[in-house]
Amino acid sequence: MTNKLHPLPPSFHVRARDRLKARAEAAGLDGMLLLLGPNLAYATGLFLTPNERPMGVWVPVSGEPTLLLPGLERENAEGTGIADLRFYEEFPGDIPAELWMLDQIGRKSIAIDFLDAALLDAARDRLTHLDLTDHALAARTIKEPEEVVLTEAAAGFADCFLQRLHGSAADIIAQGGTEADLLADGMAHARKALFAAHGSTFAGTPMGITATVHSGPRAALPHGAVLDRKPRPGETLIAGIGASLGGYHAESGVTLIVGEMSEEQRHVMQAMTACNDAAVAACAAGRTCEEANAAALDALRRAGLGAAIRHRIGHGMGLQGHEAPWLAPGDRTPICPGMVFSNEPGVYRPGHDGYRFINTMIVTDEGVTVPSRFQSDTPIEARVIPL
Amino acid sequence: MTNKLHPLPPSFHVRARDRLKARAEAAGLDGMLLLLGPNLAYATGLFLTPNERPMGVWVPVSGEPTLLLPGLERENAEGTGIADLRFYEEFPGDIPAELWMLDQIGRKSIAIDFLDAALLDAARDRLTHLDLTDHALAARTIKEPEEVVLTEAAAGFADCFLQRLHGSAADIIAQGGTEADLLADGMAHARKALFAAHGSTFAGTPMGITATVHSGPRAALPHGAVLDRKPRPGETLIAGIGASLGGYHAESGVTLIVGEMSEEQRHVMQAMTACNDAAVAACAAGRTCEEANAAALDALRRAGLGAAIRHRIGHGMGLQGHEAPWLAPGDRTPICPGMVFSNEPGVYRPGHDGYRFINTMIVTDEGVTVPSRFQSDTPIEARVIPL
Repeated sequence: MTNKLHPLPPSFHVRARDRLKARAEAAGLDGMLLLLGPNLAYATGLFLTPNERPMGVWVPVSGEPTLLLPGLERENAEGTGIADLRFYEEFPGDIPAELWMLDQIGRKSIAIDFLDAALLDAARDRLTHLDLTDHALAARTIKEPEEVVLTEAAAGFADCFLQRLHGSAADIIAQGGTEADLLADGMAHARKALFAAHGSTFAGTPMGITATVHSGPRAALPHGAVLDRKPRPGETLIAGIGASLGGYHAESGVTLIVGEMSEEQRHVMQAMTACNDAAVAACAAGRTCEEANAAALDALRRAGLGAAIRHRIGHGMGLQGHEAPWLAPGDRTPICPGMVFSNEPGVYRPGHDGYRFINTMIVTDEGVTVPSRFQSDTPIEARVIPL
Repeated sequence: MTNKLHPLPPSFHVRARDRLKARAEAAGLDGMLLLLGPNLAYATGLFLTPNERPMGVWVPVSGEPTLLLPGLERENAEGTGIADLRFYEEFPGDIPAELWMLDQIGRKSIAIDFLDAALLDAARDRLTHLDLTDHALAARTIKEPEEVVLTEAAAGFADCFLQRLHGSAADIIAQGGTEADLLADGMAHARKALFAAHGSTFAGTPMGITATVHSGPRAALPHGAVLDRKPRPGETLIAGIGASLGGYHAESGVTLIVGEMSEEQRHVMQAMTACNDAAVAACAAGRTCEEANAAALDALRRAGLGAAIRHRIGHGMGLQGHEAPWLAPGDRTPICPGMVFSNEPGVYRPGHDGYRFINTMIVTDEGVTVPSRFQSDTPIEARVIPL
């Protein structure tokens, strides 16, 4: 990293609100009320601790925005440049906070990004037109250059965990270490690097590392808890790492072979690389999300691994670790420059073994860039933990 | 702890489903569909990694339950004793998974615990009667003895952090340590104790420690990020700790004075103790939740601290860290034996200082027990970090 990074400035969020206003105007609305935390962060720069107390921002087509928050966020709400601050006393209160917000706003044709169905009839009673499209999420799918810079930096810290794991796993396992020990070692290393580089400038915005390490039969579970289990020779070990900086997420992941790689393991790893490459090619070609998923998973099917497919190839990332659009069946969004996706070939054979790779892909005008570098820097032959 | 603890057994969840069936029958329903993670855990014992893929269990008044899950949870879903397992391919798919679930269930008069308003009209089209009451949450508010045992154990590990902080903060601060250092030290200590005691028996169920440490002017913010800030003489330092075991949550928290306690600080601490005690008395007396809140906060007002109140006195705890009922305005639930609440007197004076205490309260037939012991074991005079 050559330039010192900083959290997104207030001017970014002013421009974000301009994009939201344009979308609201195009939809014939008076404005949009945003209640989802990532949408609130996008529109205001506020990263508030999520809890049961509803928190919102009203972005009108004309006029100034309004923050609508519980009283205990008063001081946190200052400094956004939004002057109109309204507070309710406490949750739950005598009226649901979402309805209090509608009464404060007083406009009749609006979008709300997400609403509890139990409140829908009461909300409709207050409005002439209620649009339940998440227009802010749609805007967020196209990242601005400043957002891409943070995503790229986050990917570097996810890689940092993998580099450490690759270098230290042999020693840790030789000393009797478990999945949990590998996780703790990699986590401490990556967190230290992240906070040393950015802790002072990014204080108060979400930053961190999340990770899982699974080996042996449990590597065949896409989702499972990390245990005090010692990886054994011949097994696969899956590490999946998420990193965030300034609220922006990236992922990096790898499958390592404990000891020597068998021919069959090499075959699977090659098929997964072909799957990864097919996803990149489909994203670069501007296919739809579900077409990219199908093209990628076909590479696994062609290698005879169709029965081992347990999930889609990837998901969008940004202010959420998982967000739309989805490289999955049913998502017909055309892939466009500015989108960020995970690329996660996975092969799961319960009772036998499991594999997952993860890269972060950034779609650009010229194609796809991959800021997660561990896989490209580590040929398949080198993805072993020598014993 | 004298007896070895274990996660709740399948028989607990069978009884939980019986309670849910009784509630559904009393409401004249065919059954209830539970989509919220804590409700799914209560009814099945499954603690699945939450993500965008809807996961549900159908609990019918008559007949057997059905698990309705994304395909990648197949192996995780086995072992609950629920035989009827149905899987959808992937998210988002061509039809929202919640509507697929309704089609699978095929019954016409049901409750759903939580639904996206954007799906309400389509859900109503499939049903003759849709009840959006969260009946499972209502059942969960009354804890069974097995749940209380886990809550009590969790409270002990929250205390463990505070004991460590109280013992080590003077040394850490003398060596130039920051809030983040105090947090890391206490967290490592409490986590180690938790996993040493229960890591092998509770593997695969949620267990952990969460904590915040704030000092000086930032102690006046109820919610804020922990920083690399050195606590200074005369300041207050707030530590708030959450612990969970087998999915059950408890909290413990304290305000310590850095150096010598001033007369004014002692006055505030005494008022907060009176507030804590008033909450305990109101819960023991079977008042409503909002009455207990009012009675507790009145103790702060009587001490001249009404302007420094920024939040309610407490919230329910169980399979969620924050859950209904709420000791807050607008919650008129009568307080009953089996309920578990936090008790969190708070005084916040922006630009000056802040204080918060936290206890866990368990309502019983005989009154209120308080499994978080740090406050009762540490008189106000001893709540200092000697410099």
